[in-house]
Amino acid sequence: MLKNITVIIFVIFSWQSFSQNSTAKEDSIMLKKIYNTALLNGKSYQWLDYLSNQIGARLSGSINAQKAVEWGETELKELGLDKVWLQSVMVPKWTRGVTEFAYIETSPGTTTNVPICALGGSVPTPIGGIKNPIVEVQGIEDLRKLGTSEIEGKIVFFNRPMQADLINTFEAYGGCVDQRYSGAAEAAKFGAVGVIVRSMNLRLDDFPHTGTMSYGDLTDLEKIPAAAISTNGADLLSSMLKLNPKIKFHMNMNCRTWKDVESFNVIGEITGSEFPNEYMIVGGHLDSWDLGDGSHDDGAGVVQSMEVLRLFKEVGYKPKRSIRVVLFMNEENGLRGGKKYAKVAKSKKENHVFALESDAGGFTPRGFSFDCNDTNFKQVLSWKSLFEPYLIHYFVKGGSGADIGPLKNEKIVLAGLRPDSQRYFDYHHAKNDTFDAINKRELELGAATMTSLVYLFDTYGVK
Amino acid sequence: MLKNITVIIFVIFSWQSFSQNSTAKEDSIMLKKIYNTALLNGKSYQWLDYLSNQIGARLSGSINAQKAVEWGETELKELGLDKVWLQSVMVPKWTRGVTEFAYIETSPGTTTNVPICALGGSVPTPIGGIKNPIVEVQGIEDLRKLGTSEIEGKIVFFNRPMQADLINTFEAYGGCVDQRYSGAAEAAKFGAVGVIVRSMNLRLDDFPHTGTMSYGDLTDLEKIPAAAISTNGADLLSSMLKLNPKIKFHMNMNCRTWKDVESFNVIGEITGSEFPNEYMIVGGHLDSWDLGDGSHDDGAGVVQSMEVLRLFKEVGYKPKRSIRVVLFMNEENGLRGGKKYAKVAKSKKENHVFALESDAGGFTPRGFSFDCNDTNFKQVLSWKSLFEPYLIHYFVKGGSGADIGPLKNEKIVLAGLRPDSQRYFDYHHAKNDTFDAINKRELELGAATMTSLVYLFDTYGVK
Repeated sequence: MLKNITVIIFVIFSWQSFSQNSTAKEDSIMLKKIYNTALLNGKSYQWLDYLSNQIGARLSGSINAQKAVEWGETELKELGLDKVWLQSVMVPKWTRGVTEFAYIETSPGTTTNVPICALGGSVPTPIGGIKNPIVEVQGIEDLRKLGTSEIEGKIVFFNRPMQADLINTFEAYGGCVDQRYSGAAEAAKFGAVGVIVRSMNLRLDDFPHTGTMSYGDLTDLEKIPAAAISTNGADLLSSMLKLNPKIKFHMNMNCRTWKDVESFNVIGEITGSEFPNEYMIVGGHLDSWDLGDGSHDDGAGVVQSMEVLRLFKEVGYKPKRSIRVVLFMNEENGLRGGKKYAKVAKSKKENHVFALESDAGGFTPRGFSFDCNDTNFKQVLSWKSLFEPYLIHYFVKGGSGADIGPLKNEKIVLAGLRPDSQRYFDYHHAKNDTFDAINKRELELGAATMTSLVYLFDTYGVK
Repeated sequence: MLKNITVIIFVIFSWQSFSQNSTAKEDSIMLKKIYNTALLNGKSYQWLDYLSNQIGARLSGSINAQKAVEWGETELKELGLDKVWLQSVMVPKWTRGVTEFAYIETSPGTTTNVPICALGGSVPTPIGGIKNPIVEVQGIEDLRKLGTSEIEGKIVFFNRPMQADLINTFEAYGGCVDQRYSGAAEAAKFGAVGVIVRSMNLRLDDFPHTGTMSYGDLTDLEKIPAAAISTNGADLLSSMLKLNPKIKFHMNMNCRTWKDVESFNVIGEITGSEFPNEYMIVGGHLDSWDLGDGSHDDGAGVVQSMEVLRLFKEVGYKPKRSIRVVLFMNEENGLRGGKKYAKVAKSKKENHVFALESDAGGFTPRGFSFDCNDTNFKQVLSWKSLFEPYLIHYFVKGGSGADIGPLKNEKIVLAGLRPDSQRYFDYHHAKNDTFDAINKRELELGAATMTSLVYLFDTYGVK
């Protein structure tokens, strides 16, 4: 009897082990197929070429944003998905107007121009601009130390740089961006008449980097104009202030906020063959800032997400669950698209089990960050070796993506693609975020890496 | 008694474990110090700016190569190393002459210009160039299939592209480079009058990529001119040949090989405090091709290697073993510097225990490749977790670097830095290998990663 049991146990274990190995082998063959197809016969680069070079910058509410919506819908329809539709959403509309102008005045008539750009959502300066004394601070907490007496009637210059010794540049961004987001609202409380913020850029160069800001609870009358200055400009300004604290700063901007306008999320779906009511989504955001052409932020994420569904068709994989690509509108200055998508999903009681966003640039993929429970994270870690041949090693718990954030609940797995982050802030929200800064292979590897993760979650389900 | 033994064993294990942890902690503190210093207070980028922008291209035997030698010596002396010296070596001298010119002639008078560049070491065309029928092949093995009857009097066009589905682009390079290196020697045997090789580039663009070639045993009279054509040019030529196999190709080059000239390896040393007769070297090659300014190949490796010794001084680490930085001359077209260094080391019976080369571009470091025995590789793997915070995950057995190859023996550990390889062949040996293609942080992370490995080998020794 004991002998028989031993034999049975042996058989069971052998079968389990065989079955596990054979599944792992199938998975590894599928991943190889996905990567090969992305690299040999990918479409993401060609799509991005069109989006960046034929449409270009596409700030929410702009004509280009509408063109991007129409392009997205057309391209998704061409893929022969089961469903493609537009989801209406009201978005803010802000325009920069003519290019901003600024100079440092060391004495009447002696001026040095510096590159600035209005922060997204800023009010304009009065016509003709303002020229005022300027005071440098290293952060919001310095405002209280200086007090109204030192700030009233002045422009406040926030100059705390990104921390270069952090390996993950997004951490360095997180450690600075409060100056850009809340600097104007806080400085206005102490009587400041304007705000200049050092660009969120680890490089020393001449590009000012825009980005969203908020006036918090300020009334329209209390709002003050806010602009970013290039890192070289910030260093120059700071050194001139050290030599002569009495220099004045001139800034002239005629940006404007308009009434909200209608725009759209663009959505495409391959309906699941076994569990059509379990939804898995991949997405990026279709809107961009207005300075470059938004190739890294987030044209890359848009075309990589589209590519996930195209690659499934190309390699002949029919998902068990319903897979949607969502091209979100208005991530940059409102997140209205992400909020709307989640709201509709909730009202329709759609069971979203997994969401993956690519919004960290089209660079060589290093892995993913997961916002999920421990069981699901354990499941992810069990797939690590499958990604090894593609040099994907980075699997951590953490944030995912802004657009998919509103879908968060106790069960869903949220994930963000994590490309190499070293170059991202060289381009982020600046004029040089353009198609020539994209490497085709790096972009394609990102799409393949995303597709592989979606394939695994679809195959094994979300626990 | 048993109890006492248990206590003793417990104490021993606790102590071992404590001691191991405390050492690991010290190592991790040292690595943090190295990375922080490289990122906050690095010198590699500033050095490379000078080497690339003030000196520029530095092909062996050129005036610029000599300037680079003098610059390297001066900078190493400024570091206050224990010894700095030049090691004389005779190197080949080849010059490109005026820019090459080529066109496709579809019918007399109807021509299309295409970008070519002579391969390093090629003979020139006769004055005025040659114009001949051209035949496309996918590799050297096709020559035999075609035979003399199909090749004689023609230009042979080697057009096998790099394989895009290989994740490691160096593998794709390895699968193609025989066309460039031996194509002319082999085609000449079948009566070819010239050779055109598709550039070793995964991108479609207009840059021809040069590189070294060999005529093998051919006599001077048998040698035929050989050039690279840009990938766009190769695709155009191939499609025109399909439409009309009778088109002719014109190429005009006036490159020239001169007598060997004297040049130098530049060497600096921090003499070891405990084992001065054990040598560990870090290096890159000071020479470059003549088309760009050699920022990635191999200016990056040069300044990163110099930075290893500077960082040791900066963080106050005094190596137990003698650490040398070697700036090798003539890697590109002769490897004379690498061979000379090894020859001298052997004749002086210097005990080299470790050598590390950086010659794969200044991109985000991913890890190392090791040419060593299993014991040493095991030792390396035991350090993996120390590199995890810096996203260094790639530790494999394989090749190391061309310049340090001649040092190989049974005991030495040879290693090569392995940066992300996706963009490398966009720039390799082409006009666009310039300083603007370098990201400061990526370069600095590479230097810190090299320094960390040298630190660990110095601390624990080579088994």
